[in-house]
Parts: sequence; C-alpha cells; structure tokens
Amino acid sequence: MEQLRLNLRDIIGRKNPLLLAAADQIFGAGGKRLRPVLVFLVARATAELMHMSDITDRQRRLAEITEMIHTASLVHDDVLDDCDTRRGKETIHTLYGARVAILAGDFLFAQSSWFLANLDNLEVIKLISQVIADFADGEISQAGALFNCDLTLDEYLEKSHNKTASLIAASCKSAAVFSEVTESVKVDMYEYGKHLGLAFQVVDDILDFTQSEEQLGKPQGQDLASGNLTAPTIFALRAKPELRALIETQFENEGDLQRAIEIVNEFGLEEAQKLAKREGDIALASLRQLPDSEAKRSLVGMVGYVLERIY
Amino acid sequence: MEQLRLNLRDIIGRKNPLLLAAADQIFGAGGKRLRPVLVFLVARATAELMHMSDITDRQRRLAEITEMIHTASLVHDDVLDDCDTRRGKETIHTLYGARVAILAGDFLFAQSSWFLANLDNLEVIKLISQVIADFADGEISQAGALFNCDLTLDEYLEKSHNKTASLIAASCKSAAVFSEVTESVKVDMYEYGKHLGLAFQVVDDILDFTQSEEQLGKPQGQDLASGNLTAPTIFALRAKPELRALIETQFENEGDLQRAIEIVNEFGLEEAQKLAKREGDIALASLRQLPDSEAKRSLVGMVGYVLERIY
Repeated sequence: MEQLRLNLRDIIGRKNPLLLAAADQIFGAGGKRLRPVLVFLVARATAELMHMSDITDRQRRLAEITEMIHTASLVHDDVLDDCDTRRGKETIHTLYGARVAILAGDFLFAQSSWFLANLDNLEVIKLISQVIADFADGEISQAGALFNCDLTLDEYLEKSHNKTASLIAASCKSAAVFSEVTESVKVDMYEYGKHLGLAFQVVDDILDFTQSEEQLGKPQGQDLASGNLTAPTIFALRAKPELRALIETQFENEGDLQRAIEIVNEFGLEEAQKLAKREGDIALASLRQLPDSEAKRSLVGMVGYVLERIY
Repeated sequence: MEQLRLNLRDIIGRKNPLLLAAADQIFGAGGKRLRPVLVFLVARATAELMHMSDITDRQRRLAEITEMIHTASLVHDDVLDDCDTRRGKETIHTLYGARVAILAGDFLFAQSSWFLANLDNLEVIKLISQVIADFADGEISQAGALFNCDLTLDEYLEKSHNKTASLIAASCKSAAVFSEVTESVKVDMYEYGKHLGLAFQVVDDILDFTQSEEQLGKPQGQDLASGNLTAPTIFALRAKPELRALIETQFENEGDLQRAIEIVNEFGLEEAQKLAKREGDIALASLRQLPDSEAKRSLVGMVGYVLERIY
C-alpha cells in the first residue's frame, strides 16, 4: 500500500509543480485505501481458486486505477459540496482554489482512463466506465433530491450504489476478470463489492450522526443540514412524521437542525444498523465459491471491519 | 448535424431538470461542430476507398463522442479560465454556477467514456483516452507557463496539440479505423487531423488579435492579457525584444497591454499566418492516398475554410 501511495503521488506530481503540492495533499498519509486493498485481496483469493501463483501486473495497475478514480471523485466532490476539510485536513480547493481542484480531478480521471484503456481488456474497460457514469448520475440525482422527504429507501440505496458501491463492485469484479474465473464467480465478486460498498455507505451515514465533530473532521449531521437525506433520516421519518416539517422548511428556525439530529439519533439509528448488517451478510454470502485462503479470510474480515465502526 | 445536436441535447438533458437548462445552453444553436463534421467526412472518404456503401452506426456514435468530449472540455475550461462568455453567449458557470458547470462537464466526460467503451474497439478507446490525458496535460502546462517569454514555438505547438489538435487527429484516425483501412491510411488521417487542428489553433490565436471585441464575443488580446502566449506573440518577441518587459511585468502600467497588442499586431501576425498556412499544407498532403470523391473534396475544402478566416 505504501508503494502504491508513492506511485500515485509520483504520477500526479511528476507533471507540474502546480500539482505536486496537490498530490502530496491528495496522496499523503491517511485514507483507508479500501478499494486497492480489495482489488489485491480479490486478486489473491481468485488466483488461489484458479491455482495461479500470484497476482498479475494488470491487477496491480487496476488497484492504482481504482484509487485514482476514487480520489478524482473526492476532489471534485469537495468543490461541488464546498467542503473545507476532509479526514480532518483542508481540502485541495480550500488550499489551492477551485481551479487547481478541477484540474487535479480532471487529470486523475484522464490518467485513469488512459491506464484503463491500456489494460487491454474490454470487459474491464466497460465495467469501470460504467462506474464513472454512475458517479455523475449519483451527483446529479443527489443534487435534484435535496430536502426531499419522499425519498424512498430504494432511491437511497441507488444513490449509494452510484456514489460508493458501484466502484467497489466493479473493482472487485475486474480483479476477478484478470484471474480468468467463471462468469458465476465474477458475478459473486461484483455482489460482494456492491453489498460491502452499500454497508460501508450506510455505516458512514450513521457515523455522520453518532461521531463527534472531532472524530468526523466536520460538523455533526452535515449531510442532513445540507439536505442530503440518508438511511438514518429515512427510518426516523417513518417513526416520527414531525421530522418532515423541520427538513422541508430547511431548518429555518434556530434549533431546528439540532432537534432534527436528536430525532434521527433516537429513532433512525437502529434500523439503519440492521440495514448495514443485512448488506454485510449478503457480501459474506457472495464469498461462498472461494476456497479457504488467507485472502478469503481477509475478505470476510473486511465486512467485520466495515461494520465494527458502528458497534 | 441538426440530428446530432438534438441527440446530444437529449442525452445530457434527459437525466435531470438541473442539467436540462445547461444542455440547451451547451448544445443550443451556434458552434461549428467541426469535430463531428470531420468524423463524417473521413468516414465517407475512407468508406469510398474501401468500396463500402455508407458510414456505420459506430462512426455516427464516434461523431457524437467527439463533440461531447470537446464540449466537456469547454465547460470545464470556462470555469478554469473564469470565462464569462463564449460565442457571445453567457457560459454555464456564469449562468448556473461552478457547481453545475463541473457536474455537467464530468457528466459529459463520463457519458463519452461509456459510449466509447461500448464501441468495442480497443484501438479507438486508446486513441481517445490519450486525447483526454492530453487535455489535462495541456491545461497543466499552460497554467505553469503563464507570462513565460521563453516559451518556444515547439512548446507552443505541443500545447496546441494537447488542447486542440489531439482530439481532431484522434477523431479522424478513429473514423478511419472503423472503415478498416490500412495502417498507412490511418496514420495519414491522424496527420490530416493533427495539422488541420494546429492550423485551426494558430488561426484562432491570430483572430484573438485581429478581430473586434464584437466579433470575438470577448475583449481583444484576452489570451495575452491572461499570460497565455500564442504564436503571434512568440514571433513578435523575436522581432521586438522590448515586448518582453511588458509581458514579464504582467502589464503593470496603464497602456502596457494596449502597447503589447499593437506590437504583436505589427510584428507577429505575418509569421503566424505563414505558420498556419504551412500546417494547412501538411494537412492537404496527408489526403494523397484517398481517391477523389465528394467527401475528399470536402476535406480539402475544410483546410481552406479554416485558413480563409485570416485572409
């Protein structure tokens, strides 16, 4: 992972001093590197299944591509959401302005498209292209649904798929494609990534209500404040219809937001936790075709790692 | 072309009302549609060569993709350059804010990547991915070279290749790939597009000095004012070394910019016109393997069309 981090920092920083500082910020310490870790683990676990000795160079490059795409989307998201800090650090657009942030994001998307094309595998190119289209769809539908209390759980899950699970699912499946497994194993790896990704997003959305401002690196309940309705709020709306008025008036009176956060904390978290757990269980079930190996055990462990943050 | 314009407007507008207004703005009337026109013409001229009856659906889709990529880059450029008007109309980011502009650009890049992947041709995917990487390189090196009077003509041509000629060259070659021509004809079509694109950029850079504010839809000499040195300025710097001080002090005194524009107009235009003409001649020579046809005559005519704007 450290090698991957240094490679990525070098790729973006090499071109221009303007981006070098941004690269340090983007690929500096911190960040879970969830996507490249999953690519390596699925690559190892499926290599085991196919009696291959080790993961391939293309799988290593795939791991870099997934992290580049993820980072590009974060950099643009920070501009879109006018977000000042991420992981407790100031964001690129706060430090260097929207101009460098847009440029750095475009550069990362462009570079990842180029690496992707040069993996020479149409199936993988299509899988990852779909992800980038899903990102844009997710951002657009999120922008159009702010403060909309009629958002259904299915619509929330679709939004979460687009912005988080799609990349994780496509990364896991692509890693399996390069191990040349059967179609059925590829589908399972997609399902593993998708439901792990959904569990991850639900957990993140829960933590937005339960963690302190210090732990979050941003104010508590910021999603709700900006009108982005997530699982805990959707469940709380079912239990406490008076929450609707607070949200639909966009917290116009002082104390409205605080009151809404309290309602979500009291009435929305338990169901959201169950939802995360269900998604985690589907992810685990998708590993059934893989033989026992260290990598498989790590894939099982990833589900626990994602869920433990809310227990 | 009208069908293509309506298709593109529909593709971006369909997703969300937020983008519908933007789509009208982006794919409304105006614009030369140079890239899709060239795709159609190269497709027809090479189909003729291969005794094919008509252009294919994939070539039609390619034409859409090239215009989407071009438009995405314009939308992001307008944010990057903080450009208020384009073709005399207000830009997306002026009308709807940077948020919608970044989103619309990302969406267009994403959608074009997805269409591109689904053309199912690795050669074309690689060609067009290279373009998107070139865009980002071009933007970055341009940002790093502002007000740099040591910029060489070769560096200027490389910048122009990255931001303009690369897409036109790759579009022309890709259109030829789908007609299944020989490698040698593919190379010629790339060279045709590249040198036509360079001629086009040089002409654009000349017009920035010679056209009125009304014709340009923006103030005269805006490139120079923002430190983006182009062919006329590079030639004028050779003839009149005192121009350097005006530029390097970033036009600090009143009248400096006006004086610099006058010097460029007097000493830089003739050499720049010769350069555009030379590039146009290389483009024409690259058509030699194509049999006579209406499409080939139109490709010849395109060179004249690009150059006539400065004569």
